[in-house]
Amino acid sequence: MTSPLHDASVRHFASDNYAGAHPEVLAALVAANGGHQSAYGDDVYTARLAEVFRGHFGDRAQAFPVFNGTGANVLSLQSVVPRWGAVITAASAHINTDECGAPERVGGLKLLPVATPDGKLTPELIATEAYGFGDVHRAEPHAVSITQSTEFGTLYTPEEIGAIVEFAHSKGLAVHLDGARIANAAAALNLPLRAFTTDVGVDVVSFGGTKNGVVFGEAVLVLNPERAHGVDYLRKMNMQLASKLRFVSAQLVALLEGDLWLRGAAHANAMAARLRAGLEAKIAAGEISGLSFAQETQVNAIFAALPAAAADRVRESFRFYDWDASLEQVRWMTAFDTTEADVDAFIAAIAEALPAR
Amino acid sequence: MTSPLHDASVRHFASDNYAGAHPEVLAALVAANGGHQSAYGDDVYTARLAEVFRGHFGDRAQAFPVFNGTGANVLSLQSVVPRWGAVITAASAHINTDECGAPERVGGLKLLPVATPDGKLTPELIATEAYGFGDVHRAEPHAVSITQSTEFGTLYTPEEIGAIVEFAHSKGLAVHLDGARIANAAAALNLPLRAFTTDVGVDVVSFGGTKNGVVFGEAVLVLNPERAHGVDYLRKMNMQLASKLRFVSAQLVALLEGDLWLRGAAHANAMAARLRAGLEAKIAAGEISGLSFAQETQVNAIFAALPAAAADRVRESFRFYDWDASLEQVRWMTAFDTTEADVDAFIAAIAEALPAR
Amino acid sequence: MTSPLHDASVRHFASDNYAGAHPEVLAALVAANGGHQSAYGDDVYTARLAEVFRGHFGDRAQAFPVFNGTGANVLSLQSVVPRWGAVITAASAHINTDECGAPERVGGLKLLPVATPDGKLTPELIATEAYGFGDVHRAEPHAVSITQSTEFGTLYTPEEIGAIVEFAHSKGLAVHLDGARIANAAAALNLPLRAFTTDVGVDVVSFGGTKNGVVFGEAVLVLNPERAHGVDYLRKMNMQLASKLRFVSAQLVALLEGDLWLRGAAHANAMAARLRAGLEAKIAAGEISGLSFAQETQVNAIFAALPAAAADRVRESFRFYDWDASLEQVRWMTAFDTTEADVDAFIAAIAEALPAR
Amino acid sequence: MTSPLHDASVRHFASDNYAGAHPEVLAALVAANGGHQSAYGDDVYTARLAEVFRGHFGDRAQAFPVFNGTGANVLSLQSVVPRWGAVITAASAHINTDECGAPERVGGLKLLPVATPDGKLTPELIATEAYGFGDVHRAEPHAVSITQSTEFGTLYTPEEIGAIVEFAHSKGLAVHLDGARIANAAAALNLPLRAFTTDVGVDVVSFGGTKNGVVFGEAVLVLNPERAHGVDYLRKMNMQLASKLRFVSAQLVALLEGDLWLRGAAHANAMAARLRAGLEAKIAAGEISGLSFAQETQVNAIFAALPAAAADRVRESFRFYDWDASLEQVRWMTAFDTTEADVDAFIAAIAEALPAR
Repeated sequence: MTSPLHDASVRHFASDNYAGAHPEVLAALVAANGGHQSAYGDDVYTARLAEVFRGHFGDRAQAFPVFNGTGANVLSLQSVVPRWGAVITAASAHINTDECGAPERVGGLKLLPVATPDGKLTPELIATEAYGFGDVHRAEPHAVSITQSTEFGTLYTPEEIGAIVEFAHSKGLAVHLDGARIANAAAALNLPLRAFTTDVGVDVVSFGGTKNGVVFGEAVLVLNPERAHGVDYLRKMNMQLASKLRFVSAQLVALLEGDLWLRGAAHANAMAARLRAGLEAKIAAGEISGLSFAQETQVNAIFAALPAAAADRVRESFRFYDWDASLEQVRWMTAFDTTEADVDAFIAAIAEALPAR
Repeated sequence: MTSPLHDASVRHFASDNYAGAHPEVLAALVAANGGHQSAYGDDVYTARLAEVFRGHFGDRAQAFPVFNGTGANVLSLQSVVPRWGAVITAASAHINTDECGAPERVGGLKLLPVATPDGKLTPELIATEAYGFGDVHRAEPHAVSITQSTEFGTLYTPEEIGAIVEFAHSKGLAVHLDGARIANAAAALNLPLRAFTTDVGVDVVSFGGTKNGVVFGEAVLVLNPERAHGVDYLRKMNMQLASKLRFVSAQLVALLEGDLWLRGAAHANAMAARLRAGLEAKIAAGEISGLSFAQETQVNAIFAALPAAAADRVRESFRFYDWDASLEQVRWMTAFDTTEADVDAFIAAIAEALPAR
Repeated sequence: MTSPLHDASVRHFASDNYAGAHPEVLAALVAANGGHQSAYGDDVYTARLAEVFRGHFGDRAQAFPVFNGTGANVLSLQSVVPRWGAVITAASAHINTDECGAPERVGGLKLLPVATPDGKLTPELIATEAYGFGDVHRAEPHAVSITQSTEFGTLYTPEEIGAIVEFAHSKGLAVHLDGARIANAAAALNLPLRAFTTDVGVDVVSFGGTKNGVVFGEAVLVLNPERAHGVDYLRKMNMQLASKLRFVSAQLVALLEGDLWLRGAAHANAMAARLRAGLEAKIAAGEISGLSFAQETQVNAIFAALPAAAADRVRESFRFYDWDASLEQVRWMTAFDTTEADVDAFIAAIAEALPAR
Repeated sequence: MTSPLHDASVRHFASDNYAGAHPEVLAALVAANGGHQSAYGDDVYTARLAEVFRGHFGDRAQAFPVFNGTGANVLSLQSVVPRWGAVITAASAHINTDECGAPERVGGLKLLPVATPDGKLTPELIATEAYGFGDVHRAEPHAVSITQSTEFGTLYTPEEIGAIVEFAHSKGLAVHLDGARIANAAAALNLPLRAFTTDVGVDVVSFGGTKNGVVFGEAVLVLNPERAHGVDYLRKMNMQLASKLRFVSAQLVALLEGDLWLRGAAHANAMAARLRAGLEAKIAAGEISGLSFAQETQVNAIFAALPAAAADRVRESFRFYDWDASLEQVRWMTAFDTTEADVDAFIAAIAEALPAR
């Protein structure tokens, strides 16, 4: 079965996890095969990955590769929160909306969600839930979780994250950064990964690989080892420890030891920018109407409102998700493998589905 | 980083998960790359895998690919046991000894372990814990979990499993089969997979791929859909749903649509038999002494007792695990990629470390 | 130690659980003493209580006495929600704010909180979270939890609850009613308990006794036995089964077999009404200023805003809670044992702390 | 309903929790009524209880009253074990056999049960499970739990507990003592409570009141505050915090501030001794046959083997439990309120049911 069952030339705008793996990542996975390596992380690829992560995040960084993003989030949060603790988070955060309650059910964590306009927390917003310390009736806040880039495709500046960390630490709260799309953020900010993590005091990061061209593989990154406890045990007991871990690590090494992580993410961002610019040009020119945008496009996601009938017509050629059906809002997302031609074809399909002004 | 960091010609006798992936499986994973496929299981490879599993296990079989064996076990058991239920299992079972308490902590399951000489349950042994139905003080038994082949490398015949199922069902208990090495069992029994599962009434199976040449990938196989509930939700909430599921499914399709699953397992079994026979011949000939065996070698594991000093000397060339240090017992394990030359070199190393009679 | 350590003539306005037990309840507890009764619920008092509850809630009602309200809530919700389910609730609900995450951590429940102005849900508010059925990424809604009377001292009419039930059932959701103060609600509505529970289709109730004059004791009331499963096991495994259950049951029998439940609650409500009317009269007369009210006083709670300095002065004589310090909002609560003289003294203390207009 | 529904003159030999409350305890509960006291433990009775416990267990002792024994056990163990930890315990321990999996399901604890002949652990027995530290595949042992007196009615000497503590601490394990019948143990040993707890290094105790004449009420006793964390939060989140906590505390004060705890327990022990001696005399005299005993009777329980038909005949007058039906073994238990006449009548009933030799 080495002839594929699917048409490898078809790409959509639904999610960056509709994409497969970057060929260089896949080559690294293949190269890690053959012979025997100790299982469960005592292998040369995992050791090499630890070095690579220290290069990006500083000498104190400890990396624990895991299967998926929900796993990375639950482990990260458990490692910095006691059994009775709670986590302040944006209501729109993936941990609150898209993980089937894993943080609560598997992690034993209480979430304290805060409504935000754009998926971004601020010290002021965090303060609305950062109270009740020592009151046993309320789950005691022990951490803040932010997402960079956010579920709305928006970005925190390093200064914004620094201010959150300063406030959080002043309240005794650890700071977790869900970095499912951390590479897209770094690319958009044009900054090294540590500039908005280690350097501004973030304690623990869910480092995302899958959405950036890896077959499967994320990592819990402990940046502040004084604060996070037991990640190795938590990984095993939460069923996130791969036996043949070399294959996760080898992929992440390929992604991170050069600039592949950055190239792929920057390209995905650029394709989203091209898509939005192309459509805005058509709107400005009066070629299409009935389309509007809900958030800035800072990374690789576009939130657009257009009539459901038009969306359905575009879907005859391209898949994408409804974001908020009540607002006729959809999400379009680009990936490392989205081509300029894909974008242009998608623009054409949208233009065809919408009337001129 | 497409030149490997490790020496792909070195193989050990520690575990079948020290091995990498079978080249045909890897080729299938690579072939599944490119283009976009719907994430989280709505892809053509997962659909094809469902067909393939039905071919092996019958038309009612439902397959849910997951990341790892602990995940498959926890999901399987949760799907057949209510919140207050307990699971009767051999004390030596992987779920009891090697999963860091995931069944209890993540699954919310109470285990009722039974001591066995060889890792095998019987109706009589199960009966010692199958009591107290309706007594709220005791966690009510709702399932039996058996392992085929067992953690001791022993086998159940279809008749033995049938008798367990009959007894279990008469008590209202579901039957789960942990098939981390189910292929080795089928190969050793020279029977189709369904002969000791579907055909004798097993309700749910943890189907193992990883130990049989897959990079990563197992599946929860529901054989009795009336009995198992919510596996799709349980998979997500327990962090076992891969976003790019096509890559798990494509590997398992490659393993299972032809006879690759059987070839690899039969070869691993044959290499263990060769190892044991070679050593027994040397013992019989008086060439070595101080070595004995603790269990039959029915699949790909050998449990041997030899002086610790001798074991240490062999370890200068080959890795393997202590099984019970107090008994100076070790475990040797072969894999799909173990060669005859590997076995012969290992026999030579052992012979060198042990005195003649 | 039969002379008390405390001054039994002092009463506050902090909470109805600052009160002790009604003398008739205490007499029943004492009368249940002596001799041996089967433990864990197989006793004559628990049997009698089952009858009494059927009298109030109808023939299908099943009663499971428990220790406290959090226990009743967690058990009730677990009994109607599968492992992967979620519960739609007002953000202000006790289960969300005051149970230290027990529903999530012990119950394994995901809460979907909805902001409300007055603690009351409506079909429209519930609809904002009643979506995503079959989507494994979201915790699937399986229940709605309402509180009667609410944490804001407001009331649902039977029609309002009926509309919620109708909507919930149309979506496949069970309806739970947290009745920590259900007696206060019945008294205020001047309706039998079943009028706004059984008769309008509520599935399961947390029946509150403690706040209405019981030493300790609540009950899970299953009104729709087809919907709720395993309460007896859930009670034990969640550590809510008293060994000497006769003492819980005897108290609840005393409360419920006559009209004691109603007398106590109606009195508490009347004392709150007297307190509010007395203060409003003083405001109207210009005798005091700087005091306002945040919610209707339908049962035994008053939410008042007054300057912090004035509140502190009143606290020199009477204890009560801050409700929202940022709004200088406090909560005053009456109990079955609050006297008219207590109320009048409290009004006087408030009046003394506030300036005239 | 102040006339009781039951016959207060009937007593059985089933369990010490078939008994009600000691009249002095009940009087204290009644005396604590009236007026308002701060809820949730901020009351004068709970403060007094803290003093009383320090008197018995030393100045570092911290007391957290809870509802029941399972609650005390789960909280105690959670407070000394991290999320990934395991607890070594006798297979016959209440936490393993009679708590419906609460330690696993609510506490998230993995139990490592050890078979014992008499319910007593030893350093040697503990050593069989005290291994694998640092191995993430195994739930890491972090505590030992012993029961004093045991579920078999046997006793540890202070020296035996001291040896367990010494061994446990040398391995980094905390020591928990389940003292559901700790008063019976102290009475039988004729030692103060601290002699076999604080003074020999026990870290945390489940202090039992219910089986010794309390309506309801136990306490988590932290003896080593450096080792136990978060009991106040754990109590709330595990639904073990009574709102009207004064009523639990007042009872325990009554039990413990004088010698009531000791009188009741010593009496129960004496009644068991009388029962056993009476029956042994009849056996020796040849008046009865077919009766034998399985354990020493050191406290208030007797384990007897007699033909099922004879047991059934005795049950026409007195209730008691089967212990192991396969061995025709029953358990007889005395309580603080068992009278000499009760014992003599029970002996007579047994004698009547058994043939002479």
